[in-house]
Amino acid sequence: MVKQVRAARTRQALVLAAAEAFAHDGYARASLPAISKRAGVSAGALHFHFPSKDDLAGEIESVAARRVEELAERCRSAGGSALGVLVAAIRQLVVTFANDPVVRAGFALSGDLSRDGGATVLDRWHGWVRDVVAQAQRTGELTDGVSPEGVAVAVVAATVGFEALGSRNRDWLSNERMVEFWACLLPRLSAVPGPDLAGVPERGTAVERDAEQSLAGL
Amino acid sequence: MVKQVRAARTRQALVLAAAEAFAHDGYARASLPAISKRAGVSAGALHFHFPSKDDLAGEIESVAARRVEELAERCRSAGGSALGVLVAAIRQLVVTFANDPVVRAGFALSGDLSRDGGATVLDRWHGWVRDVVAQAQRTGELTDGVSPEGVAVAVVAATVGFEALGSRNRDWLSNERMVEFWACLLPRLSAVPGPDLAGVPERGTAVERDAEQSLAGL
Repeated sequence: MVKQVRAARTRQALVLAAAEAFAHDGYARASLPAISKRAGVSAGALHFHFPSKDDLAGEIESVAARRVEELAERCRSAGGSALGVLVAAIRQLVVTFANDPVVRAGFALSGDLSRDGGATVLDRWHGWVRDVVAQAQRTGELTDGVSPEGVAVAVVAATVGFEALGSRNRDWLSNERMVEFWACLLPRLSAVPGPDLAGVPERGTAVERDAEQSLAGL
Repeated sequence: MVKQVRAARTRQALVLAAAEAFAHDGYARASLPAISKRAGVSAGALHFHFPSKDDLAGEIESVAARRVEELAERCRSAGGSALGVLVAAIRQLVVTFANDPVVRAGFALSGDLSRDGGATVLDRWHGWVRDVVAQAQRTGELTDGVSPEGVAVAVVAATVGFEALGSRNRDWLSNERMVEFWACLLPRLSAVPGPDLAGVPERGTAVERDAEQSLAGL
């Protein structure tokens, strides 16, 4: 039992160290010795858990996909309008890019050409966005004539762009940019003015505090 | 003179081969021998023109930045409303992602963490977008209350996203996605309904034919 707990911790430490190394050096340039050193784990233990760098990347993608899904579902279960849920989820995701190297690495790996992996995280994220926008259409929140697929395209492309731009310049992950982005897009989408931002965490809630702390720490 | 022409051609071939190799394998994994072989140039000639892979990447960024500026200025000098110019430029840029490996590599290198370069292409593109949107505001084309900076943020993030997503799945660079994207965004931006798409090349013009050919060839 103790052994299992230790093994799980070692895996976690390796995944985090690999994500940080990928964020710092890019997937192709990050080396396994540097990752095991960063994780405080022997080369043998690294090899035992992840025989190759590609295995590490695959694990990062799975963990990232799961965390993105959890984040999105948390926003959904907090209630509010579908567009409000979309706004909240994207805001949370961008905050997560700033403070969770594993999620950021998962997104970056989806588009990293130096790796032959699949685009797990992106595909699931696109699917989730499509679902929520379709829901907004069903509930009459979406302005007539706005194509749900168009909204999903704009939102997914922008999210991927925020991650890529934010990896070079943290300013792209700031609250200000998010507010500017939504102020530009939301009035077009929303058939009901105003309440669509209801899904954005209120100032002072735990989520909002997390967000502010992570933004303040940049 | 003949020697200079040959040298210029060799440089061009190397830049193109490097861009293709970066697109295929990612910057970090692409090897100099593979690049010289792809260009049909000796290793010695490659080394003479570009002592390091980073020099090649820097040259790709310069060439890409110049081409993006030329493309944007062509759209601007074709006339039409400022928002029309913006729509046309982004559409052209996405078409260019599909058919010009150097421009695509320039954008990808701007966000490639396995390289310590600057974000030349992205910075200039952001600057140009900001200019055109500011112009749209001055001429009264932009809906009151829409922040020019917000529009620039949304547009630049989405462009970067289209490049990253398109590198994995060409469908993201298709005309359909562009039309969906603008149908979602443009009605919000434009104070004058309709004519803002005037800057988009008409069907049958040379630019449009280029675009269709390149999209058909995907």
